[in-house]
Amino acid sequence: MKLADVPTPALLIDEMALAHNLAEMAAALPGPRLRPHIKAHKCTALARRQAESGHESFTCATIAECEGMAAVGLGADLLLANEVLDTRRLGALVEDGARVTVAVDSAETIDAAIAGGVREVLIDVNVGLPRCGIPPAAAGQLADQARRKGLQVRGVMGYEGHVVGLVDAAERAAQCQESMELLLAAHTDVGGELISAGGTGTYAINTWANEIQAGSYALMDTAYNELSLPFRQALYVLATVISTAEGWSVANAGLKCFGMDHGAPSLDNTEALNNTEALDGTGVWFCSDEHTTFAPPKRVGDRVRLIPAHVDPTMAYHERAYLFRGEDVVDVWPIDLRGW
Amino acid sequence: MKLADVPTPALLIDEMALAHNLAEMAAALPGPRLRPHIKAHKCTALARRQAESGHESFTCATIAECEGMAAVGLGADLLLANEVLDTRRLGALVEDGARVTVAVDSAETIDAAIAGGVREVLIDVNVGLPRCGIPPAAAGQLADQARRKGLQVRGVMGYEGHVVGLVDAAERAAQCQESMELLLAAHTDVGGELISAGGTGTYAINTWANEIQAGSYALMDTAYNELSLPFRQALYVLATVISTAEGWSVANAGLKCFGMDHGAPSLDNTEALNNTEALDGTGVWFCSDEHTTFAPPKRVGDRVRLIPAHVDPTMAYHERAYLFRGEDVVDVWPIDLRGW
Repeated sequence: MKLADVPTPALLIDEMALAHNLAEMAAALPGPRLRPHIKAHKCTALARRQAESGHESFTCATIAECEGMAAVGLGADLLLANEVLDTRRLGALVEDGARVTVAVDSAETIDAAIAGGVREVLIDVNVGLPRCGIPPAAAGQLADQARRKGLQVRGVMGYEGHVVGLVDAAERAAQCQESMELLLAAHTDVGGELISAGGTGTYAINTWANEIQAGSYALMDTAYNELSLPFRQALYVLATVISTAEGWSVANAGLKCFGMDHGAPSLDNTEALNNTEALDGTGVWFCSDEHTTFAPPKRVGDRVRLIPAHVDPTMAYHERAYLFRGEDVVDVWPIDLRGW
Repeated sequence: MKLADVPTPALLIDEMALAHNLAEMAAALPGPRLRPHIKAHKCTALARRQAESGHESFTCATIAECEGMAAVGLGADLLLANEVLDTRRLGALVEDGARVTVAVDSAETIDAAIAGGVREVLIDVNVGLPRCGIPPAAAGQLADQARRKGLQVRGVMGYEGHVVGLVDAAERAAQCQESMELLLAAHTDVGGELISAGGTGTYAINTWANEIQAGSYALMDTAYNELSLPFRQALYVLATVISTAEGWSVANAGLKCFGMDHGAPSLDNTEALNNTEALDGTGVWFCSDEHTTFAPPKRVGDRVRLIPAHVDPTMAYHERAYLFRGEDVVDVWPIDLRGW
């Protein structure tokens, strides 16, 4: 199949860019130093490429992601880096031979792990992002409680999500250190072999964690492209120009193709920055449900590539991605870890 | 099944609110005066309720929506209110007995309709939104061209999408009139029985179109709730509090549950407005991929209902919706018109 024959709108993955990104990361963080976060792509075929790059432990955000990974034989060491109150489906995976570790940050989540048949946990520590995680000073006590109840505590995790996207590299490094000092203090009290943290924005500077949970690096998006990382854009939405006017054109990909929380997508091969039209009016003007209006206009039937602003919620809209090399489609990958 | 037993995150539809909305709209725009836009819900079970309310002609935004509607016997009069360049799948529907009319705004889309076997078209007219549609003055000529090539031209459509969301009612009415004067001028040149336009924000004031393409009215969202329309909120995302801290809680529904282009969701039963935390810090703070952080905090295990800011791209994330009445789940509806 040729790229020109792909029906639009369609998610595209540039195989060469993906391969570059996987190799670059595997060189920086080989083997277990990276625990790839599969929430970023929701695709077991891509996870298999990550495994072939040497990473056998994975991070998940949902139970369905854990189930899907175990189903394709990638369940050797799954971390559900999130709190869950009904862990029965995870317990069933453990029963079937997968290794599943779940994050806990409260008595309730400890009890839930036990009730569902999960035997291994990480203590989730709040390192500055107002989201999940216990305050660092209380982490040791929670670990004691988990161990008293029979759970294996493998260590700590603490996601510096308020830091990974900071464009100023020095500021990112300074805040990363602050967060990780909190996590290391908690780890002193908790013990265990794992200090799990980080993301694509901090993978190279977070030298305190002993495993990094990066995911976006594999495919990238316009938000992370602003950080001058050594990863290439591998993800596009292919669209067809269906209407054109004096001053603008309309492509057939819209709000149901793109996670919009970081703004609108950008046109490939333009100077237009993330989610804005440039001062001269070129770039993406706006998205509607099934449309993206942009300038300068192109001809009806022309195809355009759009770069999503945020990879994770973009993947969750699509059933499949077309893997391409040059002008050829070399595989079609189901986005098979969607839903919950 | 009880609402309390629904696994979270989950899309909920309040059956009583839905019934109210359908009845309210059917009273205002009975039968063919409304051509419900099913892109807003992507659910044939809900479309069937609209048909039971007297509307047998429907508006679609994608080929997959047309196919799904025809497959369940709701293909008596489908308008694909969008330009498409490969209409073969639509031609196959016509062949199988569905009535499919497609929007055209160029020589290319006319040729595409013919090539794929579609025989009926509407001339899509630009009435002010920089998206699809031919300038009004050129509409008559395009209709002539379509007829010369053997197509049946059923009339005009012109979506005042730049108007439907205006909060100021007088401004909305004035701009609606301006847009519809453009559409009526085009209709004079084009002819045909259909003048198709409008949306939930203009359904009551657009007295120029003879059919209205409203869709959001059935379920509603926080954006449309600001317009003081007589429709009730029928759509929620049900989530469970999985973590709580001094000052905030975290529910297990995030960016992969909500179309975010109109902002973050709102907590049900609060004074907090669309996508903002109130001055006192209460309301939704932010969403991450699988989390919504909000205040004031609740207990771990508590359930919360969130109201999406934009219904259409929210529906497209979910496989199913739970229809509920009081505390009971009375049906589970597949969101079966997703994809393209």
